[in-house]
Amino acid sequence: MKPNISLRLRVFNLNCWDLPYLSKHRADRMKRLGDFLNSESFDLALLEEVWSEKDFQDLKQKLAVPYPAAHYFRSGIIGSGLCVFSKHPIQEISQHVYTLNGYPYMVHHGDWFCGKAVGMLVLHLSGLVLNVYVTHLHAEYNRQKDIYLTHRVAQAWELAQFIHHTSKKADVILLCGDLNMHPGDLGCCLLKEYTGLHDAYLSTQDFKGPEGGCTMIKHNCYVSQQDLGPFPFGIRIDYVLYKAVPGFYISCKTLRTTTGHHPNHGTPFSDHEALMATFYVRHGPPQNPGPPHGPAEKPSLRVLKEACMELGLGISRARWWTAFASYMIGLGLILLMLLCVLAAREGASEAAILFWSPSVGLVLGAGAVFLFHIKEARGLRSVQAELQHALRKAKESHDLAPVPQLAPFLGLPEGDRVEEQ
Amino acid sequence: MKPNISLRLRVFNLNCWDLPYLSKHRADRMKRLGDFLNSESFDLALLEEVWSEKDFQDLKQKLAVPYPAAHYFRSGIIGSGLCVFSKHPIQEISQHVYTLNGYPYMVHHGDWFCGKAVGMLVLHLSGLVLNVYVTHLHAEYNRQKDIYLTHRVAQAWELAQFIHHTSKKADVILLCGDLNMHPGDLGCCLLKEYTGLHDAYLSTQDFKGPEGGCTMIKHNCYVSQQDLGPFPFGIRIDYVLYKAVPGFYISCKTLRTTTGHHPNHGTPFSDHEALMATFYVRHGPPQNPGPPHGPAEKPSLRVLKEACMELGLGISRARWWTAFASYMIGLGLILLMLLCVLAAREGASEAAILFWSPSVGLVLGAGAVFLFHIKEARGLRSVQAELQHALRKAKESHDLAPVPQLAPFLGLPEGDRVEEQ
Repeated sequence: MKPNISLRLRVFNLNCWDLPYLSKHRADRMKRLGDFLNSESFDLALLEEVWSEKDFQDLKQKLAVPYPAAHYFRSGIIGSGLCVFSKHPIQEISQHVYTLNGYPYMVHHGDWFCGKAVGMLVLHLSGLVLNVYVTHLHAEYNRQKDIYLTHRVAQAWELAQFIHHTSKKADVILLCGDLNMHPGDLGCCLLKEYTGLHDAYLSTQDFKGPEGGCTMIKHNCYVSQQDLGPFPFGIRIDYVLYKAVPGFYISCKTLRTTTGHHPNHGTPFSDHEALMATFYVRHGPPQNPGPPHGPAEKPSLRVLKEACMELGLGISRARWWTAFASYMIGLGLILLMLLCVLAAREGASEAAILFWSPSVGLVLGAGAVFLFHIKEARGLRSVQAELQHALRKAKESHDLAPVPQLAPFLGLPEGDRVEEQ
Repeated sequence: MKPNISLRLRVFNLNCWDLPYLSKHRADRMKRLGDFLNSESFDLALLEEVWSEKDFQDLKQKLAVPYPAAHYFRSGIIGSGLCVFSKHPIQEISQHVYTLNGYPYMVHHGDWFCGKAVGMLVLHLSGLVLNVYVTHLHAEYNRQKDIYLTHRVAQAWELAQFIHHTSKKADVILLCGDLNMHPGDLGCCLLKEYTGLHDAYLSTQDFKGPEGGCTMIKHNCYVSQQDLGPFPFGIRIDYVLYKAVPGFYISCKTLRTTTGHHPNHGTPFSDHEALMATFYVRHGPPQNPGPPHGPAEKPSLRVLKEACMELGLGISRARWWTAFASYMIGLGLILLMLLCVLAAREGASEAAILFWSPSVGLVLGAGAVFLFHIKEARGLRSVQAELQHALRKAKESHDLAPVPQLAPFLGLPEGDRVEEQ
C-alpha cells in the first residue's frame, strides 16, 4: 500500500511548427516559447515538431534550471520532432517508431521522412509511478479523400498497444500530442477505448480556450483556410489524455489553451494552440468524470470491427499498388529488350540509347514501389491480425458477460468501463 | 495473493531454415517437424526462419488439435520469419520491429529485407501471467570483421527494453530464439544483465545435447565449415532464457537439444538444433540457480559502457558513409553539368547521352545511400542516448549503494541480483 498521496501536476503540450527554412518567425517563436516555459515552470513540457535538434539543444540550455531533465526522441531521416522537458528526474526512457507512416514518393508531404514515433518517460513522483507518452501521428492533408487514413488508424492501434503493454505498473498515465485526428475519428476512438484514457477537454469542469477546444483556429495568423478544410472555425487535433489505476483519483482541474495569440506579446507560438492542464492526483476511488463537453465513447466492438475493415481496405489498396508496380516492371523489361534489339540495328542505336535511361528508371522505380507496398501490406496485415485477435477476445468477453463490455479484457479499471459504455 | 501453483511447462524452439527455393529438403523437413510437434505436444512451440507463410498455414492446419492457438508475426518485405504454436489460448499478441537491421544494399545477406522483430504473447496459465517472447536477430556473417555488430547490439538493447517495459505485470517471462550471438558477446550480456533473464543451458542440472550446448554443429549435414567460422565443433547462438518474479520459483528441469539428426529418422530438421526445455513453476523464494556450465555474468556498468562505445563507433561509421555519399552526389551533379555542356556542342552529343544514365544513377544511388545512413545514424544515436541514460542511472545507483549493484534500477528480483554479480 502506497502512502497517502496528494499531487498537483502541471503539463504543457505544443506542436511547435519548428521546421528549419520553412516555418515563419521560427527563431523568434522558439525564443519566446523558451521564455514562457521558463517563467511558468510546468512539471512537464511536451513538444512536437521540434525538427531542429539545435533548437532543442538551445531550449535545453535555456531551461536547464526549471527543467533539469530533457530528452530528444531521434528517429527516421528528419527525426520524430518529439522532445520533453521535465522538472523531475526521468527514471526511464523508451520510444516506439510507427511501422507505417505514409509513402516515400509523397515527398511534398514529407511525413514518411520524419519517422513518426511515440516517446515514453517513466517518472517517480511522491511515490507514484507516472508513465508519460508524447506522440505525433501522420498528418491529414485532405479530409474528403484521406489517403493516409489507414496508416493513421494503424498508428493509433500501435500507440494504444504500446501504452497498454508498457504501462502495466504505472499508477498514472498521461498521453499528450498531436494525433491529427478529430475527437470522433476512428483512430481516436480506438485509442481512447482500448487504453481507457480520458480526454482532459471532455472531463475538465474548468476549460478556457477556443470554442470546442479547438487547437488549430482561424484566429491564429499562421493557420490558412486550407489547414482547416471544411471546418472554418477550427479543429481539435491536439490532446491531453490521462487515467489513473484503481485506488487513485485523478482529475483535470483546469485546461487552458492559447487562443491564437502569445499570452503577453500578441503573436502565437505556433500554428497550433498550446494545451496547459493542471491535474490533481490523490488516493481515492476510481473516477468517473462524466463528459460535459461531448458524448461518451461508443462500445468498442463496433470500433474494433470498423478498424479491421479500414485495415482490410488498406491491404486491398496496397495489393493493387504491388500488382500495378509489377506490371510496370514487366513493361520496363519489355522496353529494355526492344531497345537492345533496336540498338543492334544500324541507324536506330541513338534512339535506343536515348530511351535506355527512362526504361531502366521505370524498372528500378517500379521495383522500389513494388517492394514498398509489399512491406506496407505486410505491416497492415500484422496490425489487422492483432485487431482481429482483440476483436475475438472482446467477443468472447461480450458473450460471457450479461451486459456487453470490453473492459475486463482490456484491463481497464471499473470506473473507465462505466464511462466507456 | 495468487493460489498455490505448481505448473509444468514444455517449450520447443527451432530456427527452421525454411527459405523457399533456397534451403535444402524444405518440404520434407517441415513435414517431419509438423509430425514431431504433433507427437510431442509441447505447451509452446516457437519457430524462427519460417519465411513461407504457406508453410506456417500448413503447420497451423496440421497442428490444430494439439496447438489450437497459433500466430505468424508479419513484418518487413520478406517477413520476420517468426511464428508460435500454443496448446493454451493466447490472451494478447504484440510485436516490435527492430529499428536497425543491416543495409539494403547488402542484398546477398538479405537481413534488411526481412524486418527482424520480436514477437510477444501473453498467456494465462493456472492463474499465472506468462509473457513469452520469440526473436531472431541479425546474422553474423564474418566474426573477424563483423560489419553488423553495432546493429546487433542495438537490437539486443531494443529487445531488452521491449521485454523490460512490457513484462512488468508478468509472473513468468520466457524468451526463445536465434540471437546470432555467442554467450559472452556484448549484446548477449547486455540483454541478460538488463532483463535479469537466466540462460536455461547455464542453469539446468540436466542437459543432454552437443558439448557446450551448441546449436549449430559440424555433425549437422546442412552446416558448412563457413557457418561455424573459427569454431570447428560448433557454436551456441539459439537460447531459451527465463525468469520469474519474486514469490515464484522457476527451474529448468531439463534441457534437450537435437544432435544433428532427426530423433527418429536420421536427417536433421534444420541447420540449427532444436531446443526443448521443461520448466517447473511454483510458489517459493526466488531462485539462484548457479551456473554449472559457465561463468556468472559480469557487472553491468562495464557492459553498458562497452555498448555505448560500440554505438559510438557505429555512429562514426554511419557519418563517414553520409559524408562519402554526399561527395558522390556532388560528383554526380558536376558530371551532369559537364554532360549538359557537352550535349550542347556538336559531335559530342552521343557521348553525352551515353554517360547521362550512369551520372543520374550515381546521383540517385548516392542520394539513397545518404538518406539511409542519415536514418541509421539517427537510430543509433537514439539507442546510444537510452544507453547513456541507463548508464547514468546505474552509476547513481552504484554510487548510492554500499556494494556495487545495478539490479534495483533495472527492477530485477533479489535472486537475480545475487546471481548477476
